Amino acid sequence: MRNIALQLEYDGTALVGSQFQLNGRTVQGELETAWHRFTGEALRWNFAGRTDAGVHAWGQVANARTTTQHALETVQRALNALLPPDIAVRRAWEVPYSFHARYSATRRDYRYLLLVERHRSALLWQRAVHLDRPLDVPAMARAVHVLKGVHDFAAFGSTPAGPTIRECFVAECDELLENGRRLVAIDLAATGFLRHMVRTVVGTLLLIGQGKLAEAAMARILASRDRAQAGPTAPAHGLYLMSVTYPENEG
Amino acid sequence: MRNIALQLEYDGTALVGSQFQLNGRTVQGELETAWHRFTGEALRWNFAGRTDAGVHAWGQVANARTTTQHALETVQRALNALLPPDIAVRRAWEVPYSFHARYSATRRDYRYLLLVERHRSALLWQRAVHLDRPLDVPAMARAVHVLKGVHDFAAFGSTPAGPTIRECFVAECDELLENGRRLVAIDLAATGFLRHMVRTVVGTLLLIGQGKLAEAAMARILASRDRAQAGPTAPAHGLYLMSVTYPENEG
Repeated sequence: MRNIALQLEYDGTALVGSQFQLNGRTVQGELETAWHRFTGEALRWNFAGRTDAGVHAWGQVANARTTTQHALETVQRALNALLPPDIAVRRAWEVPYSFHARYSATRRDYRYLLLVERHRSALLWQRAVHLDRPLDVPAMARAVHVLKGVHDFAAFGSTPAGPTIRECFVAECDELLENGRRLVAIDLAATGFLRHMVRTVVGTLLLIGQGKLAEAAMARILASRDRAQAGPTAPAHGLYLMSVTYPENEG
Repeated sequence: MRNIALQLEYDGTALVGSQFQLNGRTVQGELETAWHRFTGEALRWNFAGRTDAGVHAWGQVANARTTTQHALETVQRALNALLPPDIAVRRAWEVPYSFHARYSATRRDYRYLLLVERHRSALLWQRAVHLDRPLDVPAMARAVHVLKGVHDFAAFGSTPAGPTIRECFVAECDELLENGRRLVAIDLAATGFLRHMVRTVVGTLLLIGQGKLAEAAMARILASRDRAQAGPTAPAHGLYLMSVTYPENEG
């Protein structure tokens, strides 16, 4: 029995999420269909992170144990031929039998993209969230920085069940200029994220950037561990799962 | 009578081109429909450059003479509300009565994007042309450079009718790294372009990058003024009309 890991890229626009659902196209459903067509095996693939409808990925990771004898290059080539064009396999590699895409992961990196211009964009439609008023980006950058370190993130999680303590490695907010378009990128990396956590952090930062909430509120909201204190959940289509990190001998 | 110019951005994926056609959605058709709904006027808009089905634009320019009294900000806001999401107005400005988006233009800038990786991309599907073999980018950069200056570009134009002499201001080929993806960008700027010229230049450069044609062939093909000497027309979906330039008092 081999254990194979895949790095997956997808455009979430026409997908109802990463995890299998009966009511629409999912990354897991498409991958399992493609795998079955390729090998005849009906496998359940584990995913590193659950992403919602509309969320994109440059580097989601999935794994499954298989009896296939095909070389990794053949596996990747076959899947890229069988998967629909909005899902692609960037890398396929052999992992130890104990590797689990979700439980073995030590870090997830997410990016959230905002288009901050008076008028909407056509090429960034469904790829960045459009805001037609200026944002105080330096205030947002200072506010997001308080999330760095080990904290109880219950204030930013939608479901209170289970542990809510995580270590946050990166919490940044920067301006970018791409093709003459003014973008703001919010980058978060942590051991793991609660459900809707990145989008709730972004929703809270937007209140700060729009002057509706003081910069210092971020620390107070984090300390409150109360979801009702945080801002609204920002839309899905600005969010990208950038990469997932594993211990050196497994990644 | 006012003369209004618009800078237009579009995702060409679901469009059959910039110019009005009966058999599908076009930028011109959508703009004229939106304008009619907004003002009641049935106008014909002039476009700076004709783009084919699948070709994108960050900065196409169109103009029309109108009797509308609306402020430019209102015009832009109304059009962005009425146009479909894959077409957007980036800027609206007042131009002299004699201004013509096509005939007044002094320079057009195009970019062609190639994804050069073993495996395809999901997020760059329809946004860059995928090539699964390495390219000799330095050879392509040296070859494209010979196009700079005033030349007869008949070898790279699909339709031999009309003048074929143009001045080329920029002819470059560079590697980019975006979101961990290896891209090659070919940038061309000139007074104007013959039909399919950018895509034919790219198709010829690809033969050079793949080692199927010597680097020195570029100068020979240019001098031949014979379309049969050049390479094939590269696919539309890697091409972007980046910007159009006008004399200072009109742009």
